[in-house]
Amino acid sequence: MTGVRVAGVGLTHFGSHPDRTGRDLFAEAALAAREDAGVPRDHIEHLNYGNFMGALSERQGHQGPLMAEAAGLGCPATRYEQACASAGVAAREAVKSIRSGENDVVLAGGMERMTNMDTDGATEALAIAADELHEVRSGVTFPGAYALMAKAYFEAFGGSREDLAHIAVKNHRHALDNEYAQFQKEISVEQALDAPPVASPLHLYDACPITDGASALVLVSDEYAEEHDVDAPVSITGSGQGADKMALQDREHLARTPAATEAAEEAYDDAGVSPDDVEVAEVHDCFTIAEVMALESLGFYDFGEGIGAARRGETTIDGDRPINLSGGLKAKGHPVGATGGSQLVEMTRLLRGDHPNSDAVSDAEVGLTHNAGGTVASAVVHILEVDR
Amino acid sequence: MTGVRVAGVGLTHFGSHPDRTGRDLFAEAALAAREDAGVPRDHIEHLNYGNFMGALSERQGHQGPLMAEAAGLGCPATRYEQACASAGVAAREAVKSIRSGENDVVLAGGMERMTNMDTDGATEALAIAADELHEVRSGVTFPGAYALMAKAYFEAFGGSREDLAHIAVKNHRHALDNEYAQFQKEISVEQALDAPPVASPLHLYDACPITDGASALVLVSDEYAEEHDVDAPVSITGSGQGADKMALQDREHLARTPAATEAAEEAYDDAGVSPDDVEVAEVHDCFTIAEVMALESLGFYDFGEGIGAARRGETTIDGDRPINLSGGLKAKGHPVGATGGSQLVEMTRLLRGDHPNSDAVSDAEVGLTHNAGGTVASAVVHILEVDR
Repeated sequence: MTGVRVAGVGLTHFGSHPDRTGRDLFAEAALAAREDAGVPRDHIEHLNYGNFMGALSERQGHQGPLMAEAAGLGCPATRYEQACASAGVAAREAVKSIRSGENDVVLAGGMERMTNMDTDGATEALAIAADELHEVRSGVTFPGAYALMAKAYFEAFGGSREDLAHIAVKNHRHALDNEYAQFQKEISVEQALDAPPVASPLHLYDACPITDGASALVLVSDEYAEEHDVDAPVSITGSGQGADKMALQDREHLARTPAATEAAEEAYDDAGVSPDDVEVAEVHDCFTIAEVMALESLGFYDFGEGIGAARRGETTIDGDRPINLSGGLKAKGHPVGATGGSQLVEMTRLLRGDHPNSDAVSDAEVGLTHNAGGTVASAVVHILEVDR
Repeated sequence: MTGVRVAGVGLTHFGSHPDRTGRDLFAEAALAAREDAGVPRDHIEHLNYGNFMGALSERQGHQGPLMAEAAGLGCPATRYEQACASAGVAAREAVKSIRSGENDVVLAGGMERMTNMDTDGATEALAIAADELHEVRSGVTFPGAYALMAKAYFEAFGGSREDLAHIAVKNHRHALDNEYAQFQKEISVEQALDAPPVASPLHLYDACPITDGASALVLVSDEYAEEHDVDAPVSITGSGQGADKMALQDREHLARTPAATEAAEEAYDDAGVSPDDVEVAEVHDCFTIAEVMALESLGFYDFGEGIGAARRGETTIDGDRPINLSGGLKAKGHPVGATGGSQLVEMTRLLRGDHPNSDAVSDAEVGLTHNAGGTVASAVVHILEVDR
């Protein structure tokens, strides 16, 4: 079975792009990835594309062929929708397709346009990732759902709003030099604590923003990279996917995300690594509490121990295992259908040395990305390794 | 590389189900497929699920894990959206996944709920499969788009509304004994010609209906079938996917669908068969003219020759190569996200001998299914073969 290499990566700026269409955003990211890879356009055999809410935000479905055309590709294309894990699944299927020998070169990524809706509209659109019958009709939106999870966490394991504030502060600090980030702005613990509540115990700085943006990666087989002399030191060596009950009410524990554990165990096994081998990770921090649950579900911390990691400085840029050096969804932004691809782009740049925060992980050989759908009813985990 | 067998198939009745949710419909089809296959629930390793307009019709995204749960499965699930080819793509990716050795047992299928919207709402929802910027904003909906294609066909090759009427009459006749069909009702050429216009030259009986329904297939590797003594005489031996420009205005010829040709050539090559080997086919007749373009793009007829096939009796149940023995989208119905799976279900039943129209193809060994997205901006073709 061939290995899968990241030949090139591309992003748009994450933020508000009121004057640009989704196809325009994706075309920019795809072009950047192709240029970074140096792979000719007609070598790309398939587009694996993630998008979540295009039917609502742009009244545009069938975005696979549309985005292939916008990106100047003549190849077939498939759209994956897995809520906020859409691009993670798209990339995972690209990895599988290259490993199977079906394809040698696949463009994977995603796009979301969200700021063209007002906050109510975006919140309602995001809510289609939850269970319409059993959650949304009862008034549950995502800030409310994650607030329930945070409350359950505090009740089961302890922890405080101040612990969560340290996560927000850390991720804002990590984004300071990231030119693609929506917020390149430091915040203080006090600011986070004093910010207006969104859904108690979560306040404004516990939540990721509403974002427009796109991500793209050119993935190639080892053989293709060798034959075409492609400089691609980073490989995707592990991939896993997990699922859980859709509605929170049906879960065994509100403060645990077993879909992430399932995905991680498959990915670790696939790559032949353990949680202890992972030196740097991008995790799905749509809310600060989500980062905590991710750290624990991925096996980095025992349950109840992840909440203090940022406060103790273990997950900061100068910590033992920096988490979300991109700024995370919290500060880099969260264009939902693009996020899973963006995490892979950021990790690739971190490991190969051309990320503003690469110096913090200059010896790291193993990185992980964790992309979640809804309240982690689905999760995708990838392991990336670099030739040093 | 292992072969891929159809171990079991399931459908709901296609029609109007005002009192049922989408998850309820899919659960019924999935259970039927599992019972038909005799495969234990916990052997199913992945759900590949197609849905097109759930964000609009049920305000429900993230349907992969939701449908896995509804179907009583504990496995990860992925939603594919490719407009009306969503389930075709979901099944194709299942085939690839089994062939690669990644999975031995995959449940593939799809679901759509449409009749809970009024006709205007459904027409607007379907229109997200077209190009929002360049087509929909100019007032193009799908009846209008296919009317343009029909006009272009008549202009380039000749043909008449009466030729198209023979296709509608044929497909209604084929659906007469199909208990899953929305319309088990014969119509005459005169009725079709006298029906009210929808978008000239297409009249009411040239168009498929608005439909609720679900489809499911249990696909397994040859090894699994042998090891578990699964009775599965039908195999999927070829699979292909093609793409075209999204908007009609950018196509080279309005009356040709090269995405279908691309998909078919890949599938023929994959199966090692030629168009002449195909003895029976289910093609994507969302409008009568679409069946004509399919017959020609698949290589069954030269351009300009497909229009008279039904009139000449070549594609009827007693013809040389019966087309749409299920009744097609025209008479069986078209729950868009389920249709690609339904075509595979119908072809499986036709070939293995338990379809009401199986007698017409009792010697046939090779069948084809053709599933199209939008105005065939994407297409998926499968070849099925039966052990006789």
